Amino acid sequence: MAEFVYGHWAVMETLRAGRRVIEQVLLTETVEEKGMVADLIALAKARNLKIQRIPRRIMDDLANGANHQNTALRVGPYPYVDVEDILSLAQKRNEKPFILILDLLKDPQNVGVLLRVAESVGVHGVLIQERRSVEVTPSVVNASSGAVEHMLVAQVNNLVNAMKDLKEQDIWMIGLEADPSTPPIDKTDLNIAIGLVLGSEGEGMRRLVRDTCDLLVSLPMRGHLASLNVATAGSIALYAAWQARGWEGWKK
Amino acid sequence: MAEFVYGHWAVMETLRAGRRVIEQVLLTETVEEKGMVADLIALAKARNLKIQRIPRRIMDDLANGANHQNTALRVGPYPYVDVEDILSLAQKRNEKPFILILDLLKDPQNVGVLLRVAESVGVHGVLIQERRSVEVTPSVVNASSGAVEHMLVAQVNNLVNAMKDLKEQDIWMIGLEADPSTPPIDKTDLNIAIGLVLGSEGEGMRRLVRDTCDLLVSLPMRGHLASLNVATAGSIALYAAWQARGWEGWKK
Repeated sequence: MAEFVYGHWAVMETLRAGRRVIEQVLLTETVEEKGMVADLIALAKARNLKIQRIPRRIMDDLANGANHQNTALRVGPYPYVDVEDILSLAQKRNEKPFILILDLLKDPQNVGVLLRVAESVGVHGVLIQERRSVEVTPSVVNASSGAVEHMLVAQVNNLVNAMKDLKEQDIWMIGLEADPSTPPIDKTDLNIAIGLVLGSEGEGMRRLVRDTCDLLVSLPMRGHLASLNVATAGSIALYAAWQARGWEGWKK
Repeated sequence: MAEFVYGHWAVMETLRAGRRVIEQVLLTETVEEKGMVADLIALAKARNLKIQRIPRRIMDDLANGANHQNTALRVGPYPYVDVEDILSLAQKRNEKPFILILDLLKDPQNVGVLLRVAESVGVHGVLIQERRSVEVTPSVVNASSGAVEHMLVAQVNNLVNAMKDLKEQDIWMIGLEADPSTPPIDKTDLNIAIGLVLGSEGEGMRRLVRDTCDLLVSLPMRGHLASLNVATAGSIALYAAWQARGWEGWKK
């Protein structure tokens, strides 16, 4: 089934990444050809894509009422990869694997934020479970500002089994816990091959996922609240891991 | 004018913090007294507050269509403080001042996320400018999960002047920049008296605000995207600053 990716950055990065089949480039009838819209038009033309103008109310429907910024693409499905592709990318870059593992996250906004940060710190790929978890929907693409179009994402049938497979390849499973009795994240050397595991909103990691981790780490907290939102906590942990790797691959 | 704070955590932390006048505790007619709602009722009763049941559609109106989770408070205005109160708190805790300075941020969601993280890392207070910036509205309270009710926030007439006053008290103004030519955040010793300055969504810091900073720092990036959302970048910077202080005040 066709999907509609919407929003300036989501559309821009989908075109730039070039990983999806682009069926239509859509603009609303009234939007002016300036700023990011002009950039999008130039990029679409450079790719020999035809631009179609549609009424705003139809664009509203395609984006399910979300803020589409007068731009959308009709695209083929998101190009999921296999776990092996993620490991190959690490090998190709000659880097220790750096993987993000999401345990049944539900909120597209949270997943989008995490994928955007993961892309920024050079994560080689992201694992999500096929069922009961958010997929890479247009909302996720939008919330990631299109970053997910550049990121390798594998949908796995069983997250625990996938974690066990990675452990057999000497990749350490590091679970992020809200529990204050867990050691703080800077007490663990994260400059190793890791899978950073994040639990779902409200519930955290499932028991079996937690038990499959080699190590648990936490972010210290000193205020009145017991925990941070998973997107915030995960973003901080991803940067901590990249900092431990000496900002490897940083494009200054 | 009365305000309506809504949502489980926003209502809970407003009651716990006890800094606002509580005029009414409101629940929808149909919500069951279990889970967090039961906790809220117990807390309200302990404070001798009467609970009123109202139709759901009225609650929808009070929360302007936001997700109120069947709970709201009619409250007095948010209790802004003076900059001196923020410095006094640092002194009382015997800590070097740790201040967050927001330059004309517009999105209540971003401000809420930042205030939640600021509260978690022990920031002594937050400065925002009176005009052209988000205020501490019920949306901000909600987005912060109520954390802002525990946080000292000062509205200042002129942010640049306020920064200059703080500099005269030996507090360093550290601006967070997206520009990759700026030194990375871990190259600066943040274990000093600091005001961390964040620019607005899209535009960054105003020129005069940037020029008033003593130092600029950046978060390294290595992907295709040029910047992170200000709430994400600011959260990472707040944790970096607190880590540099050795997790001072951490309640293990």
